[in-house]
Amino acid sequence: MSLALTVLFFGLFHSYVTLASDPDPVNDFCVLNRSSATTSLPCKNSSLVTVEDFVFSGIKFRGKFSETGLASIPSNVNVFPGLNTLGMSMVRADFDVGGVNVPHSHPRATEIAVVLEGKIYSGFVDTQNRIFAKVIEKGEVMVFPRGLVHFQMNVGDTWATILGSFDSQNPGLQKIPSAVFGSNIKEELLEKAFGLTPKEIAKLRKRFAPHRL
Amino acid sequence: MSLALTVLFFGLFHSYVTLASDPDPVNDFCVLNRSSATTSLPCKNSSLVTVEDFVFSGIKFRGKFSETGLASIPSNVNVFPGLNTLGMSMVRADFDVGGVNVPHSHPRATEIAVVLEGKIYSGFVDTQNRIFAKVIEKGEVMVFPRGLVHFQMNVGDTWATILGSFDSQNPGLQKIPSAVFGSNIKEELLEKAFGLTPKEIAKLRKRFAPHRL
Amino acid sequence: MSLALTVLFFGLFHSYVTLASDPDPVNDFCVLNRSSATTSLPCKNSSLVTVEDFVFSGIKFRGKFSETGLASIPSNVNVFPGLNTLGMSMVRADFDVGGVNVPHSHPRATEIAVVLEGKIYSGFVDTQNRIFAKVIEKGEVMVFPRGLVHFQMNVGDTWATILGSFDSQNPGLQKIPSAVFGSNIKEELLEKAFGLTPKEIAKLRKRFAPHRL
Amino acid sequence: MSLALTVLFFGLFHSYVTLASDPDPVNDFCVLNRSSATTSLPCKNSSLVTVEDFVFSGIKFRGKFSETGLASIPSNVNVFPGLNTLGMSMVRADFDVGGVNVPHSHPRATEIAVVLEGKIYSGFVDTQNRIFAKVIEKGEVMVFPRGLVHFQMNVGDTWATILGSFDSQNPGLQKIPSAVFGSNIKEELLEKAFGLTPKEIAKLRKRFAPHRL
Amino acid sequence: MSLALTVLFFGLFHSYVTLASDPDPVNDFCVLNRSSATTSLPCKNSSLVTVEDFVFSGIKFRGKFSETGLASIPSNVNVFPGLNTLGMSMVRADFDVGGVNVPHSHPRATEIAVVLEGKIYSGFVDTQNRIFAKVIEKGEVMVFPRGLVHFQMNVGDTWATILGSFDSQNPGLQKIPSAVFGSNIKEELLEKAFGLTPKEIAKLRKRFAPHRL
Amino acid sequence: MSLALTVLFFGLFHSYVTLASDPDPVNDFCVLNRSSATTSLPCKNSSLVTVEDFVFSGIKFRGKFSETGLASIPSNVNVFPGLNTLGMSMVRADFDVGGVNVPHSHPRATEIAVVLEGKIYSGFVDTQNRIFAKVIEKGEVMVFPRGLVHFQMNVGDTWATILGSFDSQNPGLQKIPSAVFGSNIKEELLEKAFGLTPKEIAKLRKRFAPHRL
Repeated sequence: MSLALTVLFFGLFHSYVTLASDPDPVNDFCVLNRSSATTSLPCKNSSLVTVEDFVFSGIKFRGKFSETGLASIPSNVNVFPGLNTLGMSMVRADFDVGGVNVPHSHPRATEIAVVLEGKIYSGFVDTQNRIFAKVIEKGEVMVFPRGLVHFQMNVGDTWATILGSFDSQNPGLQKIPSAVFGSNIKEELLEKAFGLTPKEIAKLRKRFAPHRL
Repeated sequence: MSLALTVLFFGLFHSYVTLASDPDPVNDFCVLNRSSATTSLPCKNSSLVTVEDFVFSGIKFRGKFSETGLASIPSNVNVFPGLNTLGMSMVRADFDVGGVNVPHSHPRATEIAVVLEGKIYSGFVDTQNRIFAKVIEKGEVMVFPRGLVHFQMNVGDTWATILGSFDSQNPGLQKIPSAVFGSNIKEELLEKAFGLTPKEIAKLRKRFAPHRL
Repeated sequence: MSLALTVLFFGLFHSYVTLASDPDPVNDFCVLNRSSATTSLPCKNSSLVTVEDFVFSGIKFRGKFSETGLASIPSNVNVFPGLNTLGMSMVRADFDVGGVNVPHSHPRATEIAVVLEGKIYSGFVDTQNRIFAKVIEKGEVMVFPRGLVHFQMNVGDTWATILGSFDSQNPGLQKIPSAVFGSNIKEELLEKAFGLTPKEIAKLRKRFAPHRL
Repeated sequence: MSLALTVLFFGLFHSYVTLASDPDPVNDFCVLNRSSATTSLPCKNSSLVTVEDFVFSGIKFRGKFSETGLASIPSNVNVFPGLNTLGMSMVRADFDVGGVNVPHSHPRATEIAVVLEGKIYSGFVDTQNRIFAKVIEKGEVMVFPRGLVHFQMNVGDTWATILGSFDSQNPGLQKIPSAVFGSNIKEELLEKAFGLTPKEIAKLRKRFAPHRL
Repeated sequence: MSLALTVLFFGLFHSYVTLASDPDPVNDFCVLNRSSATTSLPCKNSSLVTVEDFVFSGIKFRGKFSETGLASIPSNVNVFPGLNTLGMSMVRADFDVGGVNVPHSHPRATEIAVVLEGKIYSGFVDTQNRIFAKVIEKGEVMVFPRGLVHFQMNVGDTWATILGSFDSQNPGLQKIPSAVFGSNIKEELLEKAFGLTPKEIAKLRKRFAPHRL
Repeated sequence: MSLALTVLFFGLFHSYVTLASDPDPVNDFCVLNRSSATTSLPCKNSSLVTVEDFVFSGIKFRGKFSETGLASIPSNVNVFPGLNTLGMSMVRADFDVGGVNVPHSHPRATEIAVVLEGKIYSGFVDTQNRIFAKVIEKGEVMVFPRGLVHFQMNVGDTWATILGSFDSQNPGLQKIPSAVFGSNIKEELLEKAFGLTPKEIAKLRKRFAPHRL
């Protein structure tokens, strides 16, 4: 009975939380309202929206290389508020010579990427563990199906640059090495899963411990 | 003219109400913020989210049997806030000997159900009025297509239990007998629709009057 | 009658043509290929498509009244091939004086209906068994949320006509009386569900037995 | 680094802004809360919802004819709050003798339209620039695929009326003449695009300048 | 083991049967089967799929400039079969000095575009006829909401290149000038819609007559 | 020019391959036609469909334990044809004492799982590398958001069983260890990605080489 009441209560009270809508946008645009935490209006008042809301300059220049020689700059709704509800986003990835984009997946999007500079060994693995990989060059396009593990490596002798697009405003990025070894999963589970010794697991965990991210 | 203005006004003013988005989640999760009525933040601050938000213990034990010998416990977003935006929910249904889950439909989801205990006569009716029903037993799975009327009855000589899953965080449940006879639809309409006498309709309405729910 | 047969025919024969895919169409159109059973090409060759494929004249005139005084003519993809993949369809419903559109639901669509002639008592029941019903007149529009039980009755003293639209090319129609009592659901289950005697159930089943459809 | 922090910050802080959900509604209904600007509750408290929220009388009578002889009255979520999250809307269009509905598109919906009165020359253009047009009469239905340019003209000698339905609660309307010539697009671009002289462009711009809307 | 084989068997053999259905892909991929007209299998046998199916080289080099100084090369499912069911595609657009991409819309997709070279005046018009346009430069990104009219012009003194991505495997392209004036819409309708004389309409029609496409 | 022709050609010829439709099913059901390779009809003729098509008995008994002590039996559309177009599927997973379900993801679905027997350490990792894990017991439910890496381990002293449901008819399963080390990704890339020596990589590859799957 009290459960029934609880259901009813939340049904009425919180119904707006699970607002549904078309699978398509229901307005021309809904620019992310950066002050919405205080105003509660998710969309910027459309009369205040300008062309600047639909232009992003954050990927004009390459970022700083990581330990694996990758400089990746996301251009998703969190930094480009105009993308909100429009269902797309981008990423710029620069590679040092020999730079690696570690095996990763995007849980919410397909990616279509084009090489702007250099020679990139690029591929993905399907759910049958089959690999689809090759070296692609400037101007070539490759598609990575939604949610599948994929990776890249600069195999040329100059810096390389890739531009990726996604069919989600916030595709998400899950890097396999840090997700698996940097997230404190029960050690015994990892040993059995990878057939590694406690010492080997410890080494991997040390490398990917959060403070190293 | 004033209509045009009205349209414009609401277009600007209320645009955020009809926020659209991908047909997929656009974040890893968005745990229902139970205090959102006051804070206006639908999602619980993700830094406060814990594993408890993604675990639900409400269907560990069977509920109390109804008049028809059914004890049904929904596990949807209204009681399991972590399901919000994830597109799924569950229900546990226990049946007394001879217990019945009356003909009903879920307006927003397909259901896939597995028998955990007992022998259940289970089926659905398609839009051509064809019935697809049989007795299923422990470990057997049956699927009920979205929106179609379906039903179950415990035909074994012990209690029975079914676990159902839905492809919506809030599938909705419309029980045919109470929806039709417990909702105060014009009596004359019901008489013509079912070919029943005023006396017969009155009896049905009495049985399913709200206070009996 | 022949229309009904046509619907049935195409319903069975061409059902595979309407397999789903993106939430949006991926072509301007894909006119249902009536000869596809032999050619295996779901879409009519677009070079053979003409404006006639996008125009439907089947609801120009009212149909024949049923026992309950309703003449309903669907205009879905099974009779209007041009709707294929476009996500919409229509229905024309004419009512004799006192005519009734029995409680029913559309498992795959919301309906928005407008009264073209007459006075119609029209409503739906939500999942809390609350009724939302009133008499609407010429030019008034009412919306029936996806999957919920709804109904109409001509309460005026002249014929009445309603035009309904759906957000699916094939919304489906499940009439409650015939789905429940005309589909051969286990008698004992119906007795418990509706609290009726075997005699009362027998009477209802006789009335809605398939040969009566 | 600071970018990473920014991403993280907005990721947490604004995550609720991009709330996702099923491609279907997740409640029976969510009536637009007209006072939500102040209360921040998008849905009207469901205990206060009445049948009036699901009935719209705004298209009972024709509107005032525009310069081109069209009187169009939208019935979308901005004026009919009950449509919110239900994925459909309507429009009534009346035509004076010779009245024209200029070439336009609905960026977010397919339209299915029926002629209530008169003779309408009606059509659309596909992405291969093929036209599909003909004169349709009372009771005939025509479908206009999502996003494609379409148009109508009353070619009869009496007023005409069309009723259109959409598979979006807010399909949007983009009139080609005013969008192209009334929006202040760089003059030189328009000259090259249409092969018109500065004088001709100026004339068109004057005609469609905002103050004329 | 035999189950595994069964899964594999049906996975390969019947994969095309489950082509699409959820709003998401229902297989890792379904490469367009170019011989399917004869075999009726929409997906290429997955055992024959190679990495080449997911790589496209067709936009490595710029195409031939059109009369307006644009060289546009689509990279959609019609030329890149591996995109089938993956929900994305691309386009490369090169601009001669002063080159123009005429006002156009994509009926089925949002576009997100990045400038690879040059200075581009770029913008779109919303459904209130408001323009959002500015000059963007190398490395800058602009988003064009689904279905809205947009345009570009090379305002620099060198060739320019833009790369656009879409959230549909086949977004469609409707060029306003040719769709409106090259599709044989009733002359009288165009005169009223644009306020032009028969002579002016005739000039525009001559320019955009199909043989000129 | 030839490209344009190619586009046109495939546009017409292959348009049926990318048949789109509602994000929802467009028929009550479309049972997978196991003989469709020859008949080209994806759906079994609905007049031949029986209740057996909607019931699956394949997960009544546990399977054979793998090296990691897991016996997993999928119940997706490839083995349960009645699920086709209905958007759901299931999996039964039995665990030996200490048995492990290695870190994996489902690229196309959220999973909601319930413990039927035993004590299971269960969790997932979000895109910020935060872990959400705990030991859950009989009757407890846990949800794993779409596309995120998750895992389980039987930490009790008896066999354990979990039942998982998915919001896709074919969610896909990507096991991290075999996807990364059993798919022949360039050795040098793996060394950099995981910070392992060639010897360590070789050991892992040996363990997960396809013949070991």
